[in-house]
Amino acid sequence: MNDDAPFVSGRTRMFAILGHPIEQVGSPAMFSAEFIRRKAPALLIPLHVLPDDFDATMRQLLKLGNLDGLVFTIPYKQRALAFADQVGAQGEAAGGINGLARRADGWHGDMFDGLGCVEAFRRQGISLAGKRLQLIGAGGAGSAIGVAMAFEAPRSIRVTDVDPQRAEQLVERISCVAPSVEVTTGPARLDDIDVLLNASPVGMLTDARMPIDVSAIDPRVIVFDAIVVPEPTPMIAKAKERGCRVLVGREMMRGQMARIVDFFGYPEKAGDSAR
Amino acid sequence: MNDDAPFVSGRTRMFAILGHPIEQVGSPAMFSAEFIRRKAPALLIPLHVLPDDFDATMRQLLKLGNLDGLVFTIPYKQRALAFADQVGAQGEAAGGINGLARRADGWHGDMFDGLGCVEAFRRQGISLAGKRLQLIGAGGAGSAIGVAMAFEAPRSIRVTDVDPQRAEQLVERISCVAPSVEVTTGPARLDDIDVLLNASPVGMLTDARMPIDVSAIDPRVIVFDAIVVPEPTPMIAKAKERGCRVLVGREMMRGQMARIVDFFGYPEKAGDSAR
Repeated sequence: MNDDAPFVSGRTRMFAILGHPIEQVGSPAMFSAEFIRRKAPALLIPLHVLPDDFDATMRQLLKLGNLDGLVFTIPYKQRALAFADQVGAQGEAAGGINGLARRADGWHGDMFDGLGCVEAFRRQGISLAGKRLQLIGAGGAGSAIGVAMAFEAPRSIRVTDVDPQRAEQLVERISCVAPSVEVTTGPARLDDIDVLLNASPVGMLTDARMPIDVSAIDPRVIVFDAIVVPEPTPMIAKAKERGCRVLVGREMMRGQMARIVDFFGYPEKAGDSAR
Repeated sequence: MNDDAPFVSGRTRMFAILGHPIEQVGSPAMFSAEFIRRKAPALLIPLHVLPDDFDATMRQLLKLGNLDGLVFTIPYKQRALAFADQVGAQGEAAGGINGLARRADGWHGDMFDGLGCVEAFRRQGISLAGKRLQLIGAGGAGSAIGVAMAFEAPRSIRVTDVDPQRAEQLVERISCVAPSVEVTTGPARLDDIDVLLNASPVGMLTDARMPIDVSAIDPRVIVFDAIVVPEPTPMIAKAKERGCRVLVGREMMRGQMARIVDFFGYPEKAGDSAR
């Protein structure tokens, strides 16, 4: 908190997250704290928009004189794409956006789900170049993570999903954006990989299952789970027991948030207080 | 600031002030601080709406699932009236509203400009009953103050405005809502009054004039000025020199804000921290 200024005034630049439902989102607290840390005169608020109202609400929000950006959560990442005048590479590949920022030449959109995962690995000092990846889950989050990972030049990515057709579509999309990466689909395996990535909902909240049994996993495998609650998930807890290095959903969220705040025009400066 | 909860989260109930321009408004800081003081999980933000967009923006804002109320400033107090399903007595009399609150049976609107002035007198322990009032200024603020004062049963109100027709209209409006009050119009006078009220812009910002010369005012006259900047205005400074009791625009704003927060459904409770 900046002691010499109120946290909201008539000059505050506004940002908002749109979703349905909205009560569960962590972005208002996370982004607003990060704006304060970076000394940005900005605030991110929750807006609960019903599906029937999304398009008309978007048209009016983008006309507000003091609103400079939006974040989208379920179920609006795909529908938001239509409101971007320019779409970044991740957004194009994912077919959806979760960040939209006002620029002099219009609204720029991009998808940061996958970039947040890449940022979490970067912050841990882990390079993905040359690594063999097993990705479980080819839905919205899995697609974004698969595409973002492909840009990091891994040796291979194997995509697994309960819906084989959805896995196949992601394989095609990754092949298209990163032709030098070996991309395959099939059942999840642990015996020939360096990194295990879960982007499926298995293990979320009170679900005690693991997306794949890691009881006998090689401790050299790095294990990531996109799920935020619980922390750790059953899979992460077991992988830690085995001695694996692990990354959790909160790290992906933090990485994503930092990248979106950059995108909103408030890059980190020397002199910002420590995180 | 509540230390054990972030000041904005996915569960925060949203309120906003709509205006054009918006940078100058004090409401976001004042209301948000008051919400925190009353332990309300709520936040008021500025929204800069352009005149051409007002109606369409209003329609969408009122459909948001987590927005519970709006405040209106220049130039939207009159146009906002059309969006209220029910209008309070002050709003009806003033022909405009500056507060709109979600209720189970629809949106309730009312005008709090005048009630804020009444509240400022109440907080100073000054009764208006039986008093003789001189009101200078019959525009938006003056009309609201005149009507709200009329409900407090003064003996008389004299209304003065540079535009005699506007003064006459306010006289008619006051006579209609409070027929027992003696209401007249004409040049401003100080010799037969108990309370002097300025609701004209004379003395605002760098304007060194007084709406009426109070250099020889009777020290028993109570002097109020609706102008917020500067504090004191030239008239208030001179009245204080003369030994008059004075009330300033900031007190009206604070009184109004407190009444609107009540209206928004967060009445003051025993145990709220001191102001």
